Amino acid sequence: MTIMSNILNHNEVFVGENQYEDYKTTKFPDKKIVILTCMDTRLLELLPKAMGLRNGDAKIIKNAGAVVSHPFGSIMRSILVAIYELKAEEVFVVGHHGCGMVGLQSDSILKSARSKGVPPEKFETLKHAGIDLSSWLTGFSCVEESVKSSSHRIKNHPLMPEGIPVHGMVIHPETGKLDLVEDGYHMTRETPSSFKKEVQA
Amino acid sequence: MTIMSNILNHNEVFVGENQYEDYKTTKFPDKKIVILTCMDTRLLELLPKAMGLRNGDAKIIKNAGAVVSHPFGSIMRSILVAIYELKAEEVFVVGHHGCGMVGLQSDSILKSARSKGVPPEKFETLKHAGIDLSSWLTGFSCVEESVKSSSHRIKNHPLMPEGIPVHGMVIHPETGKLDLVEDGYHMTRETPSSFKKEVQA
Repeated sequence: MTIMSNILNHNEVFVGENQYEDYKTTKFPDKKIVILTCMDTRLLELLPKAMGLRNGDAKIIKNAGAVVSHPFGSIMRSILVAIYELKAEEVFVVGHHGCGMVGLQSDSILKSARSKGVPPEKFETLKHAGIDLSSWLTGFSCVEESVKSSSHRIKNHPLMPEGIPVHGMVIHPETGKLDLVEDGYHMTRETPSSFKKEVQA
Repeated sequence: MTIMSNILNHNEVFVGENQYEDYKTTKFPDKKIVILTCMDTRLLELLPKAMGLRNGDAKIIKNAGAVVSHPFGSIMRSILVAIYELKAEEVFVVGHHGCGMVGLQSDSILKSARSKGVPPEKFETLKHAGIDLSSWLTGFSCVEESVKSSSHRIKNHPLMPEGIPVHGMVIHPETGKLDLVEDGYHMTRETPSSFKKEVQA
């Protein structure tokens, strides 16, 4: 059995037994939030459970590292679509400890690519086509700094409306513990002092 | 109570009661797969359940529309990182029926942005900076075609190694039913005939 046939067999049972009935909802996020987080396998179920999110609660965007790499890339577009078309009113950027993007080196990936048969001539061709593989395939050195940087990019984007809070957080990939590291919105009086402590930490 | 304080309060209970123990796993995907799908709220829990995925099973990448917009953007980088650094051996692109990116018009978003206070001068500035907002904020007309197009972009990327299957699927956002619309790998003898039928359909 291939992975795909396993998935399709499971799916036939899931649909046939009407298991989807537990997940009925609409396309608008019930909690009016959009979350940018990481593709890490450990967050698949853990992140929604640790944030108390059920089907229908949030738009969730994911890439390696939970980063906005480019102000006019598909991640930023997704955030704007969530806000302008899907009624999201708050943005969360949730990086995580132990992220594979921390310390990621382009050399390591390009070496793997060569060992899997990608011919070195292709790297040369791309280089002379103005594509900087080294920079593209390099990660970041600190998840907190990366979360802050992406939060700033979102908050300051030319098409962002005023008054949309952008919260930067880091989640622990084993316990699901969330720490607030950046907040683009003036802290309100309702905010418990414990969160302020975490922001300062 | 704000949304954020609700989330952080929930999180404190989640961690305090050791609820994370149900989700222990590693950073390597147990099923050796990476999935690109959509940020839609309806897929938050439904997609993993409909595909039979538990915490730790897969790398999941998400944006509006499940699209690879640019061969050197963060989505494609995430797929390559999953393959070269995290042992993913198969790629799934899973679009969905009723996707908000079908028929998305830039005019609608820019009109919303203006009504929320983004000054029209900014659009002019961006235009003269070489940024084509109209093209950037336009969706696609057919989800099957979009899934095929992104699957091809992945399969033909200069840095993709040979022999990595790329499966294109469309999921129903209410029932979770999966249909295979594109397969970048020669069909194997183990593949049941029912899947071939879906591919041909």
